[in-house]
Amino acid sequence: MEEVMLNVDRFFDTNPAIRNIAREIYESIKNLPIISPHGHVDPSILSENKPFPNPTQLFLTPDHYLFRMLYSQGISMESLGIPTIDGSEVETDPRKIWQIFADNFYLFRGTPSSVWLAYEFNVVFGVKEKLTSSSAQKFYDVLQEKINSPEFLPRALFERFNIEVLSTTDSSSDSLEHHKKIRESDWKKRIVPCFRPDAVTDLSNLKWKENIQLLSNAVGYEFTTYSKFIEALHERRSFFKTMGAVSTDHGVFSPFTHELTNDETEKIFQRALKKQATDDDARLFTAHMLMKMAEMSIEDGLVIQIHPGSYRNHNPTIFEKFGLDKGCDIPMQTEYTFNLKELLNKYGNNPKLTIIVFTLDETTYSRELAPLAGHYPAMKLGPAWWFHDSLEGMIRFRRMVTETAGFYNTVGFNDDTRAFVSIPARHDLARRIDSNYLAELVAKHILDLADAREIAKDLSYNLVKKAYKL
Amino acid sequence: MEEVMLNVDRFFDTNPAIRNIAREIYESIKNLPIISPHGHVDPSILSENKPFPNPTQLFLTPDHYLFRMLYSQGISMESLGIPTIDGSEVETDPRKIWQIFADNFYLFRGTPSSVWLAYEFNVVFGVKEKLTSSSAQKFYDVLQEKINSPEFLPRALFERFNIEVLSTTDSSSDSLEHHKKIRESDWKKRIVPCFRPDAVTDLSNLKWKENIQLLSNAVGYEFTTYSKFIEALHERRSFFKTMGAVSTDHGVFSPFTHELTNDETEKIFQRALKKQATDDDARLFTAHMLMKMAEMSIEDGLVIQIHPGSYRNHNPTIFEKFGLDKGCDIPMQTEYTFNLKELLNKYGNNPKLTIIVFTLDETTYSRELAPLAGHYPAMKLGPAWWFHDSLEGMIRFRRMVTETAGFYNTVGFNDDTRAFVSIPARHDLARRIDSNYLAELVAKHILDLADAREIAKDLSYNLVKKAYKL
Amino acid sequence: MEEVMLNVDRFFDTNPAIRNIAREIYESIKNLPIISPHGHVDPSILSENKPFPNPTQLFLTPDHYLFRMLYSQGISMESLGIPTIDGSEVETDPRKIWQIFADNFYLFRGTPSSVWLAYEFNVVFGVKEKLTSSSAQKFYDVLQEKINSPEFLPRALFERFNIEVLSTTDSSSDSLEHHKKIRESDWKKRIVPCFRPDAVTDLSNLKWKENIQLLSNAVGYEFTTYSKFIEALHERRSFFKTMGAVSTDHGVFSPFTHELTNDETEKIFQRALKKQATDDDARLFTAHMLMKMAEMSIEDGLVIQIHPGSYRNHNPTIFEKFGLDKGCDIPMQTEYTFNLKELLNKYGNNPKLTIIVFTLDETTYSRELAPLAGHYPAMKLGPAWWFHDSLEGMIRFRRMVTETAGFYNTVGFNDDTRAFVSIPARHDLARRIDSNYLAELVAKHILDLADAREIAKDLSYNLVKKAYKL
Repeated sequence: MEEVMLNVDRFFDTNPAIRNIAREIYESIKNLPIISPHGHVDPSILSENKPFPNPTQLFLTPDHYLFRMLYSQGISMESLGIPTIDGSEVETDPRKIWQIFADNFYLFRGTPSSVWLAYEFNVVFGVKEKLTSSSAQKFYDVLQEKINSPEFLPRALFERFNIEVLSTTDSSSDSLEHHKKIRESDWKKRIVPCFRPDAVTDLSNLKWKENIQLLSNAVGYEFTTYSKFIEALHERRSFFKTMGAVSTDHGVFSPFTHELTNDETEKIFQRALKKQATDDDARLFTAHMLMKMAEMSIEDGLVIQIHPGSYRNHNPTIFEKFGLDKGCDIPMQTEYTFNLKELLNKYGNNPKLTIIVFTLDETTYSRELAPLAGHYPAMKLGPAWWFHDSLEGMIRFRRMVTETAGFYNTVGFNDDTRAFVSIPARHDLARRIDSNYLAELVAKHILDLADAREIAKDLSYNLVKKAYKL
Repeated sequence: MEEVMLNVDRFFDTNPAIRNIAREIYESIKNLPIISPHGHVDPSILSENKPFPNPTQLFLTPDHYLFRMLYSQGISMESLGIPTIDGSEVETDPRKIWQIFADNFYLFRGTPSSVWLAYEFNVVFGVKEKLTSSSAQKFYDVLQEKINSPEFLPRALFERFNIEVLSTTDSSSDSLEHHKKIRESDWKKRIVPCFRPDAVTDLSNLKWKENIQLLSNAVGYEFTTYSKFIEALHERRSFFKTMGAVSTDHGVFSPFTHELTNDETEKIFQRALKKQATDDDARLFTAHMLMKMAEMSIEDGLVIQIHPGSYRNHNPTIFEKFGLDKGCDIPMQTEYTFNLKELLNKYGNNPKLTIIVFTLDETTYSRELAPLAGHYPAMKLGPAWWFHDSLEGMIRFRRMVTETAGFYNTVGFNDDTRAFVSIPARHDLARRIDSNYLAELVAKHILDLADAREIAKDLSYNLVKKAYKL
Repeated sequence: MEEVMLNVDRFFDTNPAIRNIAREIYESIKNLPIISPHGHVDPSILSENKPFPNPTQLFLTPDHYLFRMLYSQGISMESLGIPTIDGSEVETDPRKIWQIFADNFYLFRGTPSSVWLAYEFNVVFGVKEKLTSSSAQKFYDVLQEKINSPEFLPRALFERFNIEVLSTTDSSSDSLEHHKKIRESDWKKRIVPCFRPDAVTDLSNLKWKENIQLLSNAVGYEFTTYSKFIEALHERRSFFKTMGAVSTDHGVFSPFTHELTNDETEKIFQRALKKQATDDDARLFTAHMLMKMAEMSIEDGLVIQIHPGSYRNHNPTIFEKFGLDKGCDIPMQTEYTFNLKELLNKYGNNPKLTIIVFTLDETTYSRELAPLAGHYPAMKLGPAWWFHDSLEGMIRFRRMVTETAGFYNTVGFNDDTRAFVSIPARHDLARRIDSNYLAELVAKHILDLADAREIAKDLSYNLVKKAYKL
């Protein structure tokens, strides 16, 4: 792949004493296979392997990073063709939408979206031009032509991206039919599901009863007790494991953990079934379920991921009309020292368990998370997440975490993306940032180069494989 | 203006790869007119256009950044000539005070005050010497001589500073007589007021009843009901608009927003009139008034500024003897995701409204403010404020805000100063810091130079004009 | 001392424009005597002056930074020879433990431990080799040989380290026998105690009654009233002063300060004696005792140190088996603006009192601590503490504190260590980081070099001497 627009030293320190080392480290890891242990790619893309419809639906429609920024500047969701829940009309001409995107592309200056897109356009699609109002339609044409060619079918891209493993994220009641189809096909790439039971463990979810029904359908029996509910989760975890799952994921409001007695839990569960669960019930139930999940993980070996602290659907105007994941999730203050105590006290000393903790509250990196991960054998730190999975965000993560937790209580990179073609762009960025961070340590005589090269490989490949047991 | 002591590359990265670009960007914006959309300059300075009395009263007496630092090292407020409320005696010899200032000038090393003063002395007043114990009196003489000359009259300085618009901040009951005088004079510069109703919207203010009386006097009628109070505010906003106002300002303890029913509000208002309002009444009333102000802004177009999170007058010893704004205001933890929800849910989707939010709690930049501003069309981020309007503070702001909110959900620079002659010093610093930040992005191949130059102009001039509708 | 592995420019900016200045500043301060005003070295080491037993017990056993990291990676405390409370068996072969340490030495890459150890091995012990699995035993031999030689006796090292004053930290009931022995010996070095009454001021301490009994024994009379308790503390402070103490230290959960009436305090004290004190009693009593300590400090001149915000013994599994200080203390959110208000309002305007405040919550540096210290005459800021006493941590401290509090409201460096031989390593690191920070300010034309050199000396020597009245 020829790179014209993208400088070979992009994102590295401009001081040659660091840049030269960064380049050398990066060269040694840039071609390592990609392991993507946590993300939100729709597996049907790979099971069906159909061409992407058009540039707008490939790049813009699934990417809330992009349309949230456009929306913040007064551009309506309708004009961007974001589908409504009730099917009410939105713009359907992908070229018109693409033109709006191009006209406002300046809004992304200085954001990671612009960096990822530059890679996607340039390296993945070979389009070297700058996206502007006047280049928009020609740009669209070139992308469309590529999309239609066999080299740009999802599986071809997957192979070109050199992805060794890709994890999706799936509801506990999911049939995993696309995973099945892939496993049963003659395409032998490793796509694994991840067990995410939030829909049934969060009693404050307005659709909790429907979600319970879906789980019931999935296991093939009704359940009216908490213990039966637990049995169903056990069963589903086993099923996910047979489909290749190595982890669970918990997108909780707060990382509060607390074990209830069976009696308490049963009472709360019964109230929930009657739609009488209180806010406090919901809070306690989620806290209890995190404890329960750790207990099950000790049995079945699934790695636990905790992604707390997002106030989901902060904007009801958008939520009611367009639904989930529309760029309206806002981080909030998050506390770990007290909240994780019960979980870590009971299970954290077990080196066979792995609990990977993420945060949207960067103040906890050096204050709570690195000290916790630097002590409890079971706890590891997930990489800079979501808004912080950016150039500055990843640097802050390393600077605030490494000195207390070291490199070896972290787990490498997660791209966590819904945008399939952004995967190599995101891994490339992370590898560059890490290479540069390590180069700085070498140039300042904190590390020697041999160690730095070893760490670079660990951060890009070995640690993620080990932490997620892949 | 010749600059001897001030290096042309001051504050830029020392790496030539960045510095050269920073210099080029800075050169392209350094002479743009200053727009000062928020600050605390006393308008009588410009309406009266009298010479400043002496160096001590020009530099030290109005600048709490300076005397707070001296006080922190055991130098009494009295010895610095800070006037007392009860008129009890303080030092009156400006030369003696100036000598203390000079003797302790080393305390400001590494602070933005030293950087601003260097500019003021050097560029504004042409004094190239270092302020020390031994140079103090000569320094004073030179400054005094300049102050006495016509070139240093306030209006002459205003013109030399190339200020296009200057906003003051004014109580809702203010007669704006100095604004009137300026408008009626033949000096056609644009000085505009800003409507700040804190004195009457904060029921915990010990002088609330007196403030209500002042408002009553201003509108010319007594009011004993909440609805009449609202009418008075409406009227005053209209009056402020006729005097050029484009914005309101709210220096609230917390950014909590919440709409009360008319009945609830009336009851709280009545309790307040009887001096029986509780802490909770005060909290709710302020939260409600922010909602009300947004409602009025949709009607009259005034931009809303929210400046929360300062614990005012933390030190009663100083407050009781010397009054407000004496360097005893201490920032505190501030929360936006929950607190602004009601306001943003009701008014935040309206792209015609502009709500500019500031913070003294830097932890909210990347966690709450950038995500909110990167989504809600009405919300924009004010620049680094007060203690954070400094070299490192402005860099942190850009690094933590830009990747999520972009440049275009920010509103350029506010000098927010009481110290008139510090205005060009502060804008120069901000322009240098922004030029250097952009240069770093260019040198790391995140932006191209043409884009960076455009952004630099936007940050220095266009964005502030647009956000404040100037 | 010859330094082979350690680069002379280590930790400095790699840009020559900064590095050359950093080197020059550092050269001017590197040989200044060490003042260690706060730390946890066992005074018996210096009173007895016996050879350290072996490398394992010298480096690993007392250093929770080291074994916490090993433990976090699944290496048991038993295998590291950490002694158990009940005397149950642990590994006793120091060579086996050293081998585990060496095998896992890669875990410390990028942490301050690796930087300190490099200095200790290289500069203090003259061992230039890299510690690896294969070099471990030879490394051990060389260290053991040195340890056995007279040049490596504690007092010889103390002199070689050029320590002018060393403060230990001692319980209020301590006999200070080792301090006495040193004072009575013909070795005329200054080792001073620090009065730390936490064991008797924290009612939530499970051994509070035993601790009160120890205090009782120390003063030679029983006490059953609060006022008698206060009398005992007075007496102990006087005793500590006669033994050279210049400061008190308070490792409180929260920095909450609040004065109770004598009646309230007496009631709480009586409940505590009956083991009936509530959590709220404990909270209020500690808050009150901080006020009381300030009152006493105004009388006797002892400097107050407040070290809040550590959740001690977070992991009961380790605490119950191995006891205190085993790497299981986790920082938590800490609030100062409200919590210190009562203390500062009552005593903070007194320039004769010195209250040195520390934090484990870096978010408070720019938001609360620098503004408070930049105003109240009595308050000063302790250096970056514990997890933050690291390369990045110290840089963050300077960047977030200096612009608001200046350099002169800080108090120089504290090594705060239990590991005697790490003292010069830690001071060297701090001096390098400060030199580099100052060099950056010079290179960016914020300071001139003469001022920077003066500040460097102040930060390394003068400020600590002045703040601690040494």
